[in-house]
Parts: sequence; C-alpha cells; structure tokens
Amino acid sequence: MPLMKSWVESANTPETDFPLNNLPYGSFRTEDGEAHCGVAIGDMILDVTALEEDGLLMASDEEDEVFFFGDWTEFMGLGPDVWAAFRAKITKLLSAENGDAPELVSYLVPQVGTEMLMPFSVSEYTDFYAGKNHAVNVGTMFRGPENALPPNWLSIPIGYNGRASSVVVSGTDVRRPWGQLKGPNDDLPRFAPCARFDLELEMGAIVGTPSEGMVSVQEADDMIFGYVLLNDWSARDIQAWEYQPLGPFQAKATATSVSPWIVTKAALEGFRTSTPDRERELLPYLQEPGPMLYDIELAVTLAPEGKDATTIARTNYNEMYYSAAQQLCHHTTSGCAMNTGDLLGSGTISGPEKENRGSLLELSWGGKEPLTLDTGETRSFLEDGDTLTLTGHAQGDGFRIGFGSCTGTILPAGENKHA
Amino acid sequence: MPLMKSWVESANTPETDFPLNNLPYGSFRTEDGEAHCGVAIGDMILDVTALEEDGLLMASDEEDEVFFFGDWTEFMGLGPDVWAAFRAKITKLLSAENGDAPELVSYLVPQVGTEMLMPFSVSEYTDFYAGKNHAVNVGTMFRGPENALPPNWLSIPIGYNGRASSVVVSGTDVRRPWGQLKGPNDDLPRFAPCARFDLELEMGAIVGTPSEGMVSVQEADDMIFGYVLLNDWSARDIQAWEYQPLGPFQAKATATSVSPWIVTKAALEGFRTSTPDRERELLPYLQEPGPMLYDIELAVTLAPEGKDATTIARTNYNEMYYSAAQQLCHHTTSGCAMNTGDLLGSGTISGPEKENRGSLLELSWGGKEPLTLDTGETRSFLEDGDTLTLTGHAQGDGFRIGFGSCTGTILPAGENKHA
Repeated sequence: MPLMKSWVESANTPETDFPLNNLPYGSFRTEDGEAHCGVAIGDMILDVTALEEDGLLMASDEEDEVFFFGDWTEFMGLGPDVWAAFRAKITKLLSAENGDAPELVSYLVPQVGTEMLMPFSVSEYTDFYAGKNHAVNVGTMFRGPENALPPNWLSIPIGYNGRASSVVVSGTDVRRPWGQLKGPNDDLPRFAPCARFDLELEMGAIVGTPSEGMVSVQEADDMIFGYVLLNDWSARDIQAWEYQPLGPFQAKATATSVSPWIVTKAALEGFRTSTPDRERELLPYLQEPGPMLYDIELAVTLAPEGKDATTIARTNYNEMYYSAAQQLCHHTTSGCAMNTGDLLGSGTISGPEKENRGSLLELSWGGKEPLTLDTGETRSFLEDGDTLTLTGHAQGDGFRIGFGSCTGTILPAGENKHA
Repeated sequence: MPLMKSWVESANTPETDFPLNNLPYGSFRTEDGEAHCGVAIGDMILDVTALEEDGLLMASDEEDEVFFFGDWTEFMGLGPDVWAAFRAKITKLLSAENGDAPELVSYLVPQVGTEMLMPFSVSEYTDFYAGKNHAVNVGTMFRGPENALPPNWLSIPIGYNGRASSVVVSGTDVRRPWGQLKGPNDDLPRFAPCARFDLELEMGAIVGTPSEGMVSVQEADDMIFGYVLLNDWSARDIQAWEYQPLGPFQAKATATSVSPWIVTKAALEGFRTSTPDRERELLPYLQEPGPMLYDIELAVTLAPEGKDATTIARTNYNEMYYSAAQQLCHHTTSGCAMNTGDLLGSGTISGPEKENRGSLLELSWGGKEPLTLDTGETRSFLEDGDTLTLTGHAQGDGFRIGFGSCTGTILPAGENKHA
C-alpha cells in the first residue's frame, strides 16, 4: 500500500508520523479547557468530539455521545465492526478525494501547543517479561549466563499485574520515588530515594473487546484495539530488595508513561510479522495461527537538563518472543476476565546488540559500564532533570505509521515527611 | 459498649452478626431485579436506595442519588465526615428509642432468599503476604525451616498486585481453572486443570478516601472505609511453575470471593488491637501510632457436595504481623496513587497451631498429611463440589460485630477448546 493522500497537506510527506494511512486516536484539551477526542492527521488534530456534537461524525448509527467526555474507552468497547466502519468514515472525510472539505477545516487543531490527555481509562495494567534479549541480559547479570532464563521462560509469557493508577500520558513529569533499599553489604534496609531509577522501552497493547473465560490466540488478537509506546519506569534498587518471593511491587508503581496516540491494529495490518522460531515447542494453546507481532522501529533518547538529547538505544518490536495476542491468551487461561481498557505492557524490548538494549540496567550492565552521552556526560541510571523520549514507527513504502513520542522528565525526590 | 437495642427485634440477640452496633453496608437485588444499597439489621436489610428515593435518608446534605445505582462506591469516596454523619442517621432511624418506626417497616427486606451483589466497584486489588505463621509455614515447606522467612519479610509488608476483575461476591461459584502445570519430575509443562486448588482465609480492607503521593500509617488508617472477609482462591500447581521471577499471576486470577457486607471501621472501633512485638525494629515510616489491627475471630468450613460442613480452621485477624494501615502506607511509598474502591487482601491468616491454618496447603502440609473431615472423607486440596465458607465476628460484651459469610462452591473445570 502506498501513501494515501489527504487534503491536509502536512499528512502527505514520507516523514510525518500521521499520514492518512495511520489515523491514530488521542484525547486533547481544547482552548476552553475541555477534554475532546481527536484523530491525528499530519501536524493537525481532527476534533472528533466537536464533529459528533455537530452531527457530522457518529461512532455508529446506534450510538451518540460516545465521544462526549473526550475519552475513547466507550468507543473501544463497541467492537471490531464499529471500529472498522468508523475508520472508513474518517478516511473518507480526510481523503484528498474529498476535495478541500472547507466545512471540516474549522475542526482542525494544530498539534503544536496542544496538551494531550490520557486517551482511555486504564482498567487494569499487566506488564510482561517477554523479550528474550532483555530476559537473557537481566538473568545473566543476576544469575550468570548458565541460568539466565528462568526454566518457565520458554513456555510461558511471564507477566505480573501492575498498577493501573500509575499509568500517565506522555509529558507527565515523573518524581523519583522513595523506597526501602538494602545494599548487598548492608545488614538492614533504609528508607531513601531510589538511586537506580531506570526506563524500560516497551509497547503497550490495549484491550477493546472484553472477554470472560479463556480465549484463543486468534480471539485475543481480535480483542486488541491498538498499540501505544510505553515506558515502564523502574526502581531497580527497590525491586532488588522487595521482589522475592512475590514479584515487583513498589519498584514499578511510580509511573508508567504511554504515548498519547493509540495506533489501531487496522493501521498496522501491513506490518505484521511472526514471532521467532522456538527452541522449545509451545503448548498448543499458545501457538499463533498467523503473524501477530509487528515490525515497528523503536528508539529512545536521553537529554540531560538543558542539554541535547542522545539516542541511547534503537530496537524493534519484532524482537519480542511472545506477541501481545499470546500474552492476552495466556492471561485468560485461569478464567480471568479481561475488560475494555486493560493495558498489556510487552516487556522491555532489547535487540541482540549492546546498542539495542531497552533499559539503562542493560545499557550500563548494572552500572558497571556507564554509558557516555553525546554531551560527554555519563549515565549508569537516570539523574534528576533527565528527559527520556521514546519514538516508534512502522516504515511503509514512502510513508510511516508513527506513534508520536512518549516522553517524561525526572523530578527530584520529594521531601519525606514520614521517614 | 453493650448491645444497642433496635426496634428490629432480631437485631437484639447476642448471636446475630448484625446488631445496631454493626450496621454493615451491602448491595442486594430487589424483587424488581434492581440493585439497591442496604444496611443489615438483625435478619433484615434496610433498603437505603428506596429511602433515598423517597427523601427519607440522604448520604449528605450536599449529595443526592448517591445510592441510585445500588453501589456504595460513590459514598465511600465522600470521606470520613460523611461516613460518620450517615452512620449516626441510620443508628437513630433503627434505634429502639425511635419507637416502632412503622413508616420504616416497609423499607425492610428479609435477608433470607435475597440475592446479594458486589457492594462496591473494585478499583484495583492488592494481595499481601503479611501473616507470619502462614509465611513461616509456606517457607518451611518450600525452603526448609532455616530459610522459611524471606530476608525482607520482617521489614516490608510484602504484597503483589492482584486482578480486580477476579473479585466476586460471596455465593458466586468458582470454576476450577486450567493452567500450565509441571511436576517436579517432568521435563516439560502440560496444559491441564489445576489439581491443587486451594482457599486462603483473609480479610480485605477497602480504601474509601483516595490519595496521591505517600501517606503515613495514620493517614492510611483514616483512608480505610471498612473490612470484608476474603477468600483468595489459589492454584498451587500453577503458581509453583509460573511464579519465578515475577510472582503469582494466573494462579491467583480465577476468583477472589468477598463477603457481601462491608463492616465499617466505626463498628470495629472497640476491637482494635496492636500488631505483635517486633524481632526487627520497623523503619520509622511503618511504625504504628496506635493499635490498627482488630480482634476478629475467624473460621472456615468445608462441605463436600451434598454433605455436612466440617470446620477446618479457626484463627483470628489479630495474628497478622502487619495491619492494613501499614500495608496501605507501604503501598504509597513509591508515589503510587490509591483510589476509592481499592481492595487490600491481608494475606492468609494462620494462627500458631495446626488447627489455625488458613489454607489447605498448610493444613495438609503440601498434601503430605491429608485432612480428615467429619464425614470421614479426606482432603489435601479442594475437590469439585466442595463448598467453602468463611465466617468472622468481633465478640463484644453480649453482642457481636459479624461479617456474615463468604462462600463459594467449586465447579469442575470447563472443557478446554484450545489445548
């Protein structure tokens, strides 16, 4: 498929994240301070809530006021037929074949200077550990190369429940957490600000259609509404002391940032790719009937306060060992009900080489090999004032399906009133 | 405080769970099929939604339609002053000093035969591991008596995020889950119904007032709206294979049953008790400014299908090493926001003796010492058709603050369409 032309000229370049082929869904604050639903097109946002109010664009023939509150959650619950019909309507509205569409120009808002909001209400958040390079790297550091992968890793998309209340939209500052820390040579823990605060470069899959009981991998893929970039901020020192025997808890509860534009499965359809060959055959319930991973190029930059950004890693979503569909299927094996707005983090996406590693833990090898930035500064873990930015796109023939960016700046730890 | 007298005669006995001193909050289905809020009094339910509709009982002077949807969540978010004023109003309405109150009789519904519903919307669910006898028992089985307690256990109320969508009200059947199982002598896992399905006897604390940023133990205690009985159904064989390194996931996602009546902190005030002396001093932020645990007698019965129930364990909430207030405080250390409707499971409450153990894992010592029921049958883990019932009450002088019961019956595993 080539670049599809829009009457919004900025959407017709090979560099834009948001050509007519993409049409991702976000929420933004209007000049009046209201939350509205919008669709990104080039460097503009089409105001979907205003179009609905004026009767020019409805979520479906049966539903009204779906976009009234400026949140996509209700729409996500309407299911694949509504998603497809609505996407067709917007495509038609914004297509160059629709002429100049002067009646629509007043519904366009510039992206620059517009505040983006969380595009959906996170029902529950699950984070996985399904990137093999990441698991091998972390396992090698902690348990040595012989025991790098836990015995279950090749059989199960390992996941744990995260904290939905921690999920924030890109642009939200992230305050360095306090927590219990215990050095390897300390007898007892102390309560102090995290000294090994880190990022994790991930993709997030968003559940649209709810389920009860177990679903197949194909049904799971059908349930997914779309994808976002996701940064699972991680306090490594808190995690090291707390995580045995029941897993990470406060180490992962400070913040999880997501990019503001939900890129739909429909937009990514042409970029499907398969998970890798297996060294251990998967149990039948986890086997994929077709390609359910995506070829999405990813990068992360780090900018110290007031300084230029350095690209610290480049990787690709196709490095995952398990797809989001496999993760979602496994999530339902116990009979666990899934709901509209459930968010699934892929796990850290590291590639095979050092420059492909999606966390500072791996990039600095646990702090032993600090990273040198283009500014000359070094980093083992994040410092106050650092701004981290994730970007990603699927590269088409003369166009991109882009995700925009997922950014956050580290604020110093607050005063502790309770220590 | 003695038994307070109500004009509802069944509330005036020493045996009732629901005297005027208690007044727990629940939701029930009316004859018309609607969900209504209610307050338990003796063997009756006072229909709070109907009273609000008729203008006879308002949540506060500022709010109306708080109970319209038959759910207590909105009320829980109104805060301690509203909670106290509302409790005072209901106490007055139902007091014997109010005479026979003939105008209120039509708002009473018998508990017998009335379907109870989830009394609140679970925002997120966190389960802890904060009972020392349970942790020592489980640790001894898995790691030996020398290493029974993980090194962090005496410093941290260990917790993990559970799955809110798994929480169901007492009376909901629980279907035996499928999952990945791997025996100690097997090379590879298989996908099969859980063979070691278990209960966990716990208390649940419900967050009323939301928070952002870290709160103190006292502030955490103030945020708690009330308590329920909680059975954290657990698939031991699924857990054994999946839980390293990121903790329990599908093993805990089948169901978590809660009792239908939320017993308020106000009703339990006279039964506060302190957590035990510490063998390791807690970090200052976790130290309690006063007693924040409660003296609540607990029991669990097991009834095989069509047979009489056997009491398999008796214990007390005062066996906990960490209070819900300490758990909630720790939950916020990272800056994690807490919301109205967050549910915190205490962790399994086992006492010091064998007959005080709150799970079959402990009672049968991992299946090595099957339990003999009064019917002559034995149990290592749960069998299809078994009905488990938790009960609990605080014993006052001539009255009880009771929790009613938390019950669930095991259904056989479903057919697996995907294996």
